Amino acid sequence: MSNQSFPTFTDISTLGEFGLIKELTKNNASKHHNTVKSIGDDAAVIGTDDEAMVISTDMLVEGIHFDLMYTPLKHLGYKSVVVNLSDIYAMNAVPTHITVSVAISSKYSLEAMQEFYDGIYTACKMYNIDLVGGDTTSSPKGMIISITAIGQAKKDKIVYRSGAKKGDILCVTGDLGAAYLGLQILEREKQVYLAHPGVQPELDKSQYLIERQLKPEAQRGAIEYFKREKIVPTSMIDVSDGLASELLHICNQSDVGAFIEEGKVPIHPDSELAALEFKLDPITCALHGGEDYELLFTIDEKDLEKIRFMPEVYIIGEITDKTDGIKLHTTGGNMHNITAQGWNHFAE
Amino acid sequence: MSNQSFPTFTDISTLGEFGLIKELTKNNASKHHNTVKSIGDDAAVIGTDDEAMVISTDMLVEGIHFDLMYTPLKHLGYKSVVVNLSDIYAMNAVPTHITVSVAISSKYSLEAMQEFYDGIYTACKMYNIDLVGGDTTSSPKGMIISITAIGQAKKDKIVYRSGAKKGDILCVTGDLGAAYLGLQILEREKQVYLAHPGVQPELDKSQYLIERQLKPEAQRGAIEYFKREKIVPTSMIDVSDGLASELLHICNQSDVGAFIEEGKVPIHPDSELAALEFKLDPITCALHGGEDYELLFTIDEKDLEKIRFMPEVYIIGEITDKTDGIKLHTTGGNMHNITAQGWNHFAE
Repeated sequence: MSNQSFPTFTDISTLGEFGLIKELTKNNASKHHNTVKSIGDDAAVIGTDDEAMVISTDMLVEGIHFDLMYTPLKHLGYKSVVVNLSDIYAMNAVPTHITVSVAISSKYSLEAMQEFYDGIYTACKMYNIDLVGGDTTSSPKGMIISITAIGQAKKDKIVYRSGAKKGDILCVTGDLGAAYLGLQILEREKQVYLAHPGVQPELDKSQYLIERQLKPEAQRGAIEYFKREKIVPTSMIDVSDGLASELLHICNQSDVGAFIEEGKVPIHPDSELAALEFKLDPITCALHGGEDYELLFTIDEKDLEKIRFMPEVYIIGEITDKTDGIKLHTTGGNMHNITAQGWNHFAE
Repeated sequence: MSNQSFPTFTDISTLGEFGLIKELTKNNASKHHNTVKSIGDDAAVIGTDDEAMVISTDMLVEGIHFDLMYTPLKHLGYKSVVVNLSDIYAMNAVPTHITVSVAISSKYSLEAMQEFYDGIYTACKMYNIDLVGGDTTSSPKGMIISITAIGQAKKDKIVYRSGAKKGDILCVTGDLGAAYLGLQILEREKQVYLAHPGVQPELDKSQYLIERQLKPEAQRGAIEYFKREKIVPTSMIDVSDGLASELLHICNQSDVGAFIEEGKVPIHPDSELAALEFKLDPITCALHGGEDYELLFTIDEKDLEKIRFMPEVYIIGEITDKTDGIKLHTTGGNMHNITAQGWNHFAE
């Protein structure tokens, strides 16, 4: 009798994006001495001189990352660039160049593509970026966008996720949860429209939230402030998957714990109201919402005075010992463990 | 009475890929003085020092660029890397780093993705490349791959499409048309299989052609030879869309004419046989087939002796005055105009 067993396959939806990346890159050894930082941060770092090159790439898929029913193509172009620049800023680097690849079905008109590129060029102008290459091809279904951003930084000023240490102050550059709530509103109005095509969508009073979703900005000002004030954060990451998920990245890679004061987490009044409407807890939207593209960073205590003068910054907590865990101090005086509930595109 | 007219939209399938790119990038001005070469060559060139960075990106879409029915995932990973490296070599640069983004449906297993990455890592090892970043996300349908390759070159050794001049010798690094014929064989066997699932595909005698299609190589050896022998081609491009299309790029960008001797164009004996079987003219496959990933380049007459000792090279023609046009001298003694019939993904 044969004792042969059938191979078993692992469903990637059980791994999640980070688990999958970890599996696929576990044997990825660098061959070049100028590969300073490979996979595992907001961007890779390459360079032998004082000046290093920082590179990051993102792929956006229609039906997963955006819905053309409520996303104007110009906004989509703009946002596609901004989310990549955000990764470069999160390294404390200055983005300078991008490449843009896009696959579209042949049903798109030239004018539609011009709208999309109009958004790309507007972002390039706003953030002083050169578009230097790309690929334009067709897709059997849906639109796919892949952007690679390149930036520059002095090697000793680059900020990784791994440098936070006990006693460091935890800061964020702007309010959180708004982009997620903007998405909820757009989705709700889409459903209303699909059910009753004659009804006008109610979007006027949600302008702030919708703009945070459709036209986010990258935190160039923060990086410029750090340079001017000679501050180098000890760790930094951009908030694309939600505050909780990003804080876990910093804590895991820095081998530390942290706490966040619920009352200190900046939430816009419009977000508070919208959360109420959707019967959601505002802090949950801030912790797990994602797509805010603010910067979450830690600084050494000695830089606290300098940070107080930063035009847009909120001190939301502190880095602690690893054994203290990763906690939320609620306004009610309770302590909760913070766990990741960020996007898992592979879960259904 | 209103005199309003309805807007008319331009169907992108009437423009083709190059027409579309031209339209979308016509106002793309560079803001950074270190942007040496932007859109319009095999890769972009960035850098203020003697040493410049060369960057290229490609997007591959299932159902357009590859068919998973006959493409093993490992080969797909390998080829995805190679086609990008080919663009870097075509600038006379040495590729050093890549980023890989991939969108897949959640139905893929971890093991399938490991196969794909196995091919990526095999190519990285073969060509001495570091994989430094990327994005892994889901797709509602089909697999999409986007790879960005980064390379280095001395700025004065970078070869563009625009440097060919009258009297230069036109060369190619290997035989042409085989990848296209390999694809025809795979497509034929797929149709046979779909009609009669029990029949074993006849692929053994087509091994060379199928390998040229499924596992192409980039021309690293040519670039190393140029460096060793101190040759700098006057222009260069990689053959991804077919000899005719690439020659037209060189002639248009260099503002010259050219002729090719039909009898000198290298065609593998297996390609000759397969072309016969498919009732195709072998020279047509070489001119318009694409995906050979050989290098087409021009050298100054003074380098002719050095080129004769190159391990793999074929002299196929000469650069002429622009007014002489772009011609094929057939073995029968006729002259034909060479026109582009390369891939147009947007045509249906």
